Amino acid sequence: MYPNLLLKRASLTPNRIALRFEGKEWTFAQLNEDAILFAKKLHSKGVSPGMRVAILASSNAKLVVVLHGCMQLGCELVMLNERLTEEELSYQLQDSKADFLLVDSLDKRNLAHENLLSFADVECIEGNSFQIEKEWSKDRTITIMYTSGTTGKPKGVRQSLDNHVMSATGSALNLGVQPNDSWLCTVPLFHISGFSILMRSVLYGMTVSLHTKFDAEKAVEEILGGKVTGMSLVAVMLERIITVLEEKGLAFPNTFQSMLVGGGPVPLNYLERAIKRKIPVLQTYGMTETASQTTTLSTEDAIRKLGSSGKPLFFAEVSIDGEEEIGEICIKGPHVTKGYIGASESKNPLVDGWLHTGDIGYIDDEGYLYVLDRRSDLIISGGENIYPAEVEQALTKHPGVREAGVAGKLDNKWGQVPIAFVVLKENVTEDELKKFMKTQIASYKQPVHYFFVDQLPRNASNKLMRRDLLKLVIE
Amino acid sequence: MYPNLLLKRASLTPNRIALRFEGKEWTFAQLNEDAILFAKKLHSKGVSPGMRVAILASSNAKLVVVLHGCMQLGCELVMLNERLTEEELSYQLQDSKADFLLVDSLDKRNLAHENLLSFADVECIEGNSFQIEKEWSKDRTITIMYTSGTTGKPKGVRQSLDNHVMSATGSALNLGVQPNDSWLCTVPLFHISGFSILMRSVLYGMTVSLHTKFDAEKAVEEILGGKVTGMSLVAVMLERIITVLEEKGLAFPNTFQSMLVGGGPVPLNYLERAIKRKIPVLQTYGMTETASQTTTLSTEDAIRKLGSSGKPLFFAEVSIDGEEEIGEICIKGPHVTKGYIGASESKNPLVDGWLHTGDIGYIDDEGYLYVLDRRSDLIISGGENIYPAEVEQALTKHPGVREAGVAGKLDNKWGQVPIAFVVLKENVTEDELKKFMKTQIASYKQPVHYFFVDQLPRNASNKLMRRDLLKLVIE
Repeated sequence: MYPNLLLKRASLTPNRIALRFEGKEWTFAQLNEDAILFAKKLHSKGVSPGMRVAILASSNAKLVVVLHGCMQLGCELVMLNERLTEEELSYQLQDSKADFLLVDSLDKRNLAHENLLSFADVECIEGNSFQIEKEWSKDRTITIMYTSGTTGKPKGVRQSLDNHVMSATGSALNLGVQPNDSWLCTVPLFHISGFSILMRSVLYGMTVSLHTKFDAEKAVEEILGGKVTGMSLVAVMLERIITVLEEKGLAFPNTFQSMLVGGGPVPLNYLERAIKRKIPVLQTYGMTETASQTTTLSTEDAIRKLGSSGKPLFFAEVSIDGEEEIGEICIKGPHVTKGYIGASESKNPLVDGWLHTGDIGYIDDEGYLYVLDRRSDLIISGGENIYPAEVEQALTKHPGVREAGVAGKLDNKWGQVPIAFVVLKENVTEDELKKFMKTQIASYKQPVHYFFVDQLPRNASNKLMRRDLLKLVIE
Repeated sequence: MYPNLLLKRASLTPNRIALRFEGKEWTFAQLNEDAILFAKKLHSKGVSPGMRVAILASSNAKLVVVLHGCMQLGCELVMLNERLTEEELSYQLQDSKADFLLVDSLDKRNLAHENLLSFADVECIEGNSFQIEKEWSKDRTITIMYTSGTTGKPKGVRQSLDNHVMSATGSALNLGVQPNDSWLCTVPLFHISGFSILMRSVLYGMTVSLHTKFDAEKAVEEILGGKVTGMSLVAVMLERIITVLEEKGLAFPNTFQSMLVGGGPVPLNYLERAIKRKIPVLQTYGMTETASQTTTLSTEDAIRKLGSSGKPLFFAEVSIDGEEEIGEICIKGPHVTKGYIGASESKNPLVDGWLHTGDIGYIDDEGYLYVLDRRSDLIISGGENIYPAEVEQALTKHPGVREAGVAGKLDNKWGQVPIAFVVLKENVTEDELKKFMKTQIASYKQPVHYFFVDQLPRNASNKLMRRDLLKLVIE
């Protein structure tokens, strides 16, 4: 058992600032009070402990209250990605069997759900008291986040209380923690990168300064103000922050200690420019299945260990599967998911306690991890994961498409962007395909180019060789 | 499972300083190497994983290596208190069924044990390799420390790996932790106050600066040097440090952040003087059964909440048993012992998961704990626990003593000192009694005064009313 996180934090440091958003501040006592009030109202609407509540909303202070309110009521949170299409969201709602769907605004989507509630629907009613649990089971599911794998079919990953707690404590032992810590959150709360900040906030007693969207100017301004000690982002966002600082001829103050960069390695050029601007870059390797960070590279090692994601956090272990030096990266530790829900519930992601990530890498003789290839030819575009298989499946749904292959192309701005290779059954134009695809998958997953080819590269067992796709256009 | 603590730390930050002792320094890599070498030699001597090894030694660098060596070999450590008599130590050796007794010097004691080894006996031989466990079970017993209870019979308290880990992480979330932290240890390593510093060191990657004995001048000098960020002590030691600073007309530097004071409340007079000398006093309430701290009072609250021991650490819970506001202090959390070994093995210290401490106190409306009376009329003298029942039992072993009562008297230097009230069977002088007692119990437990009385105060059920003993001399 662990203590009820927010309740405990509110009792320990009631007057410390928990949340800062658009000029307003909430102490932990206020956040706890608001969360319990929202939970009571939810309860009036028929939401009960143990129910699964899907949330679709933009990052703002209200969402933080809603998330904590659901946790106080003992619900499991299905974190929906705002950028997905209705088709994609419907699948996740159906697969998770969410009892309720909570949205920040009713007119935003045409999602069908028998228990659809907007935040306003809940707020306008009287609350109904419930028994607040002072202790939470370690194994309790806090969040469910969907992520795709080799098959391209999104799987609901279960993140338990112990996953979140051990991730946060492991991170504290690595990055350090101080009573006046304050983290700037410009990454989405529906992502583990954002949600884990909320968890660290209650465990550490740390202020979260929340921005709805990433705005490099705004982020820089706030950090220069001296109140922020850390921030999470991906390489493409880092580059924009560096550019803003370069334009202003400024560097970050000493108060700013941790720039945690996930979603792939940071290019040398960025690192060198970051050093000049006093940005302490900490590269990290993590995923939905590990409730955020598994390894982190310290600032001092950034240049010496260029390309590395660092060493595992204290409670985490990393190993390489296979007989060669380079092989599949496997992860073990209390931060690793116990499994999936829904259609993938029977699939055990662990083998002898080890999560087989599908990512390829090696560990050098000093114990530093190098990630060479993301799992299943994963394309990481501006920090968002794009699974080629998922895009291919969407393409082949079009009646004119026989088969399709998708690969990531290097891109200066986004790191990578997806491009599609299509074998046609009948005549279809690129415009027709583009229009069709917009109804199928989120805009950030849309291929930027379509190449019509006669056949796709396949190996002897007829498996699509995605890495050979790019050769079709280069040669 | 948790990772093997020292092995993991040595792999994460091999070059960070782990230990500083008499001008010499050990990195985590060196400490790990030395510990494994010692473990191999121990193994040659017949010590095997799972065995119980009792240790009797002074605090120095060698002892740190020995303790880690035993842990690497997978042994349980029975931590013997150097200040005890042979009689007391023999009981603990017998009760714990220690497989081996390791002493820093053979000529120090005449302890009988069939497997008695000095550190030198072990060091002079060749090592014998063994399988280093990369993961340790959470429930593994790391240490056994003896503490007395109401009966006066010392009980072996089992401190598991999870107890130590959760204690250290809870403390980190409260006090904060930084990569350059360095803790001055002048309290004995056989005490939980000292041993817990070693555990925090490997979990945090924190330097321990070890002094064999507390010397206020030496401690102040080192803290003024600016390398130390924290220190653990008891009120009587704090007063000596304040006095040294006052004599020098100096204050502590800002680098020094945590003066953790256990073993009873700090008088207002000390607190006020500490503030002038920039000593950030953090009062704490903990015990052997809770693997050190359970509650800690922040520096900011020291005066406002005078007499309080603060709020529970994040993973700890405190409650008051009984119908009144004031009652028995109960503690719950992953840092609480699962139980005893030896003669007390069958006694479960927990009731519904709560440790009933025997201490009396209350929690105010802001959640701060106030400890009013230590358990079983416990006498705390210079930070050492003295159980009246144990001293009384020793006294009644003398053929001339019919019955005896022991109580704590306030003392300017030590906080409290024990005084004895004796009803004689036959004529015995104070000198004879003192001589006899020296063979029975440690010198710090010796009564400073003996009063010969006709009868002892007892209640209706003939229970000795120890609190009424002092009235015998005052009236």
